[in-house]
Amino acid sequence: MRILVINPNTTHSMTEKIGEAARNVAAAGTTIIAVNPADGPVSIEGYYDEAFSVPGLLTEIRKGEADKIDAHIIACFDDTGLEAARSLASAPVIGIGEAAFHFASLLGHRFSVITTLSRSIAAIETNLMKYGLASRCARVRASEIPVLELENPASNASARISEEIERAKNEDNAEAIVLGCAGMADLAQRLSLKHGLPVVDGVAAAVKLAEGLGVLGLKTSKLGAYATPSAKVYRGQFKDSAP
Amino acid sequence: MRILVINPNTTHSMTEKIGEAARNVAAAGTTIIAVNPADGPVSIEGYYDEAFSVPGLLTEIRKGEADKIDAHIIACFDDTGLEAARSLASAPVIGIGEAAFHFASLLGHRFSVITTLSRSIAAIETNLMKYGLASRCARVRASEIPVLELENPASNASARISEEIERAKNEDNAEAIVLGCAGMADLAQRLSLKHGLPVVDGVAAAVKLAEGLGVLGLKTSKLGAYATPSAKVYRGQFKDSAP
Amino acid sequence: MRILVINPNTTHSMTEKIGEAARNVAAAGTTIIAVNPADGPVSIEGYYDEAFSVPGLLTEIRKGEADKIDAHIIACFDDTGLEAARSLASAPVIGIGEAAFHFASLLGHRFSVITTLSRSIAAIETNLMKYGLASRCARVRASEIPVLELENPASNASARISEEIERAKNEDNAEAIVLGCAGMADLAQRLSLKHGLPVVDGVAAAVKLAEGLGVLGLKTSKLGAYATPSAKVYRGQFKDSAP
Amino acid sequence: MRILVINPNTTHSMTEKIGEAARNVAAAGTTIIAVNPADGPVSIEGYYDEAFSVPGLLTEIRKGEADKIDAHIIACFDDTGLEAARSLASAPVIGIGEAAFHFASLLGHRFSVITTLSRSIAAIETNLMKYGLASRCARVRASEIPVLELENPASNASARISEEIERAKNEDNAEAIVLGCAGMADLAQRLSLKHGLPVVDGVAAAVKLAEGLGVLGLKTSKLGAYATPSAKVYRGQFKDSAP
Amino acid sequence: MRILVINPNTTHSMTEKIGEAARNVAAAGTTIIAVNPADGPVSIEGYYDEAFSVPGLLTEIRKGEADKIDAHIIACFDDTGLEAARSLASAPVIGIGEAAFHFASLLGHRFSVITTLSRSIAAIETNLMKYGLASRCARVRASEIPVLELENPASNASARISEEIERAKNEDNAEAIVLGCAGMADLAQRLSLKHGLPVVDGVAAAVKLAEGLGVLGLKTSKLGAYATPSAKVYRGQFKDSAP
Amino acid sequence: MRILVINPNTTHSMTEKIGEAARNVAAAGTTIIAVNPADGPVSIEGYYDEAFSVPGLLTEIRKGEADKIDAHIIACFDDTGLEAARSLASAPVIGIGEAAFHFASLLGHRFSVITTLSRSIAAIETNLMKYGLASRCARVRASEIPVLELENPASNASARISEEIERAKNEDNAEAIVLGCAGMADLAQRLSLKHGLPVVDGVAAAVKLAEGLGVLGLKTSKLGAYATPSAKVYRGQFKDSAP
Repeated sequence: MRILVINPNTTHSMTEKIGEAARNVAAAGTTIIAVNPADGPVSIEGYYDEAFSVPGLLTEIRKGEADKIDAHIIACFDDTGLEAARSLASAPVIGIGEAAFHFASLLGHRFSVITTLSRSIAAIETNLMKYGLASRCARVRASEIPVLELENPASNASARISEEIERAKNEDNAEAIVLGCAGMADLAQRLSLKHGLPVVDGVAAAVKLAEGLGVLGLKTSKLGAYATPSAKVYRGQFKDSAP
Repeated sequence: MRILVINPNTTHSMTEKIGEAARNVAAAGTTIIAVNPADGPVSIEGYYDEAFSVPGLLTEIRKGEADKIDAHIIACFDDTGLEAARSLASAPVIGIGEAAFHFASLLGHRFSVITTLSRSIAAIETNLMKYGLASRCARVRASEIPVLELENPASNASARISEEIERAKNEDNAEAIVLGCAGMADLAQRLSLKHGLPVVDGVAAAVKLAEGLGVLGLKTSKLGAYATPSAKVYRGQFKDSAP
Repeated sequence: MRILVINPNTTHSMTEKIGEAARNVAAAGTTIIAVNPADGPVSIEGYYDEAFSVPGLLTEIRKGEADKIDAHIIACFDDTGLEAARSLASAPVIGIGEAAFHFASLLGHRFSVITTLSRSIAAIETNLMKYGLASRCARVRASEIPVLELENPASNASARISEEIERAKNEDNAEAIVLGCAGMADLAQRLSLKHGLPVVDGVAAAVKLAEGLGVLGLKTSKLGAYATPSAKVYRGQFKDSAP
Repeated sequence: MRILVINPNTTHSMTEKIGEAARNVAAAGTTIIAVNPADGPVSIEGYYDEAFSVPGLLTEIRKGEADKIDAHIIACFDDTGLEAARSLASAPVIGIGEAAFHFASLLGHRFSVITTLSRSIAAIETNLMKYGLASRCARVRASEIPVLELENPASNASARISEEIERAKNEDNAEAIVLGCAGMADLAQRLSLKHGLPVVDGVAAAVKLAEGLGVLGLKTSKLGAYATPSAKVYRGQFKDSAP
Repeated sequence: MRILVINPNTTHSMTEKIGEAARNVAAAGTTIIAVNPADGPVSIEGYYDEAFSVPGLLTEIRKGEADKIDAHIIACFDDTGLEAARSLASAPVIGIGEAAFHFASLLGHRFSVITTLSRSIAAIETNLMKYGLASRCARVRASEIPVLELENPASNASARISEEIERAKNEDNAEAIVLGCAGMADLAQRLSLKHGLPVVDGVAAAVKLAEGLGVLGLKTSKLGAYATPSAKVYRGQFKDSAP
Repeated sequence: MRILVINPNTTHSMTEKIGEAARNVAAAGTTIIAVNPADGPVSIEGYYDEAFSVPGLLTEIRKGEADKIDAHIIACFDDTGLEAARSLASAPVIGIGEAAFHFASLLGHRFSVITTLSRSIAAIETNLMKYGLASRCARVRASEIPVLELENPASNASARISEEIERAKNEDNAEAIVLGCAGMADLAQRLSLKHGLPVVDGVAAAVKLAEGLGVLGLKTSKLGAYATPSAKVYRGQFKDSAP
């Protein structure tokens, strides 16, 4: 099976890190193809950055479909462009945010999310409500570490996230933790051991969901919400993206 | 007061119709500036079209901010790009979908929405849930008339919408109707008279909300969800859109 | 346009203050008529006071309807008697509580409310649930300042409300504030500047919503919940109020 | 134990019928005192009638408190004035609507309500939401029989209600039925036998809840929502109702 | 009327205490028969213990049905086996948890629950959601006192519960308290006096609800969720429990 | 990896069919061990049957834990005993109902469930609410085919299920289908092709989720809801099941 993992920001080093995280958990027969768009922001922090990462993301989805990819993963915790990607794809499309929420739901009564900046909390809460899983989330917490700072070994990212996990256990009664950024994938196992509760990384969770849907031959429904876009003219710089 | 009304699709005739609808209800001292992006789809029907209309929409919002506009209106019923626009703007930003929902909530216990294609129902239902107003909506109905067909005098658009209003009264116990497309703005008054219940057009509602917020000096909050985007590099075709 | 602003308590000085707040934001062509009932409590603090202010309020609504008023505003934050008023009126009826909630919803992801006494919290929370907007409200806070104390320049009302706003920012992550009493109308602008977030006063918001509905010709639906009351006998002191 | 059953409308024959229904199910040591206000509508159908029945209802509650009554029952299915009555009373106060909802919740997964006129559906749905029991109600149905017509032996009230019960079983999958008017109290047992499912009358249910709270010494909480009203001036015709 | 009160754990001294609490509040004509199963855990603390108490509980329900009992009470606060018991019984079945929630809902806007161990919080929250009453509960609190320790006069159970009630008043704004274990039945009255708010014990509440349903002839619906189990083979140690 | 698939009913032929369905989708390195309890009902249809299948199920979970199994699957669509099993296990435990709901949530906006008997609808709806996914489910439909009839090649099970899928598409606007019984596992692929939408079988979905959690080393949280049961005495026939 071939899975396309799209980091929707344009920071190639982060794409490589995500690709590696995906390969670490992929099944023997799975090929992980990790890409990022050529156009758009170097990191996605809030709604504005999201808007400019979606066209590039969809270009990658389109290439993946042409290449008969078996499943797509959107490797940004905000699940940027998920619905548009599903409209375009016939293969299944998984966001790493939703993947982590679904996995955490199987392990405890309630989980807390530790994300990067507080400006992202509203988007994550809204996603939880859309997916139906808001009642399973005790709280979305911000570590106030910018996305790209997670790449910096000199940052105290791991310590800050660890502090928030401790608060989530004590103040939220969280029984599981979801790491709220693709750039935190490498921290999950260590933090789980340290804090004695399951810590879910969305990249890993998404790979297993994508493999699962792929093996079962389950594809995105083309009835209703994710129906194939109608043919029509697109103007200007987007004219080649017309469906 | 100067209000920027942005039709996020690229069909200029529709922009003019929307601008006219807005001017028809604007207060004496209000100037309506109706624009549309140069880039993107000629109509917005579903998530994929939305994705490619947002960058152009944000370009118009940015120009409006530079021009010290008092309020922005996004004139697509899906409230395309609303959160990203709010992040960029300091002036208030109103979507015509939310405007219509808020107005209809003031007139009856429950309203039904009549939109264009059934592929848009999920997006509208999701918006209602985000805004908190899902419990006020009896049902979102599709007339199955494509957006641009509303421009065609030979279409039976008005008759089809009228049929759905009748069903909404009888089957949904709707007490008010929301017209679910900017292109239906001209039908509201006639359909209200015909069916004996309030029929709300989002363009008109948004103009009155924008004027209201403008007069009161109420601006988009810059704490949390709509905080000003962080400065960062954008790559490729979007490099000039970096915050 | 002529808007009837009804202060449902019987304190005339408060009616004048509310009338002035309404006139301050009204459009050029709008006439504000501010009244209060002759009968009932001097302030409304809790469910019992509400009950005795509604008959007088409805008498004023009835006079307004006879006088062909274009819209009614109920200027008590509990939206006292709103549904009964809508049943009686053909013109639109706006409560200042709901007006403030709808406006605040357009400015941030979540707002907090600062009201007078804690006994009013339950009624406000119930209203938020009825309107559908409970998910948009982070918390309803009481300043523990009685309504009429807001009229007293020697009280520390403004300082107490300011303290609660600070808590709402820090503890509730509120992005906007709603002032929960008609008597706080004069504080909105100053508190907004001081705290750097939108502060919404319901009287002002209701005037703009009433003007908006009025210009658009949108009236209360007479189907279902707000159908005109059936003719019947009323006995005793209420015999002249029979529909 | 002495229970005050207040029919908040001013139709004495209905008060007698309600009193009889209450006595039929009361325990050996229970005295039922059935009263109605002197002032207000002869029947309560919608929000406007409710408003003019509450002051008279509260006068009866006040007399009951002075008389050391053990519990109050509000015998209108809309639970008219329930919160205001609780603020005034130290004894428990039960609405017949809520009583029926609580009892029906103990008998099946979901119940349907059969009320009088469709104008009352919104108020009942709102009450269900306030009480928390909306998810337990499959549907609120109107029989379109006016309240006082239930007193008329020549009406086809029983047959109409029976028809709606049949629909509730088939269309709503209702497992229990709640009769939505005090005037239907005498029909419960026969309809239960006929349709083979529990049919709950609110008057009977309220008597048993009132007796239960009374025996256990449970009284209305005076913290928060139902705190004793603050002393203050009431003006005009309500001056003697001041707390 | 004869009411079967089943303590689903196998600690006979607790059964006797529960029986006494039930008799203390029962009406003159009510006979309380308090039993416990022969098989199963000595106390129920969490989902695992629940599972092994249900078969024994159902054996007692079956005997009660054969004995033409008028109503069944399940005297464990988790309402262990409630749905299965309802499927088996034609008489009404009341759980002490739900009984307490329904009673507390009649006395204040929101209540808090004080239970034994924190491992039970999730089950209680889930029950509140099932019953529809989650919105009425401010918080479920654990005293961290094991069930059987409540039997020990040397334990500081009462003091610990009293501390949590104080917190519930201050931190949760609880207006009423529900005691979350059958073994706390004897504490309700004293704690109510001490803290000045209603404190509800589920055993007492359930007796009054069971008597109420019994007098009204209301039985468990046999349509849908609680339909009589289909005849079928049960194997092994459960072969005699086959329906 | 070794996955224990427990059919909680005692029909061995159904266990074999389920085991085969699981093996059909298992990864190369996965060993499926399919078992059923010795004690309990031959099929699970409603709450009563559930109660008598849980002790046997837990015996199998306990054996699996002793045998260092990597994940447990409960192969009954009601997710019988899921919480108790999680309390006992340190390995992850997946119910086939929840597995199917999570997978279907990834493929369309809303899904419908087609189960066996209508008596199971309430339990499934309650599970959806517990998991948080009720808003993703358009409707739970019953085919009225008893569980064991699915084993009978002469039954018209497939045709009846196909009819309900057609109704779910037309009446519920379902975009995906969940098959609501382990015994329907073999029908998914054919029905998906026939109806042109994803059809999810819970056995297959659970295998892929169990493999996913297993590979990632994610185990059931032992904080809170699923904490290891406290040591205590169990009496009578369950004495060997004491924790």
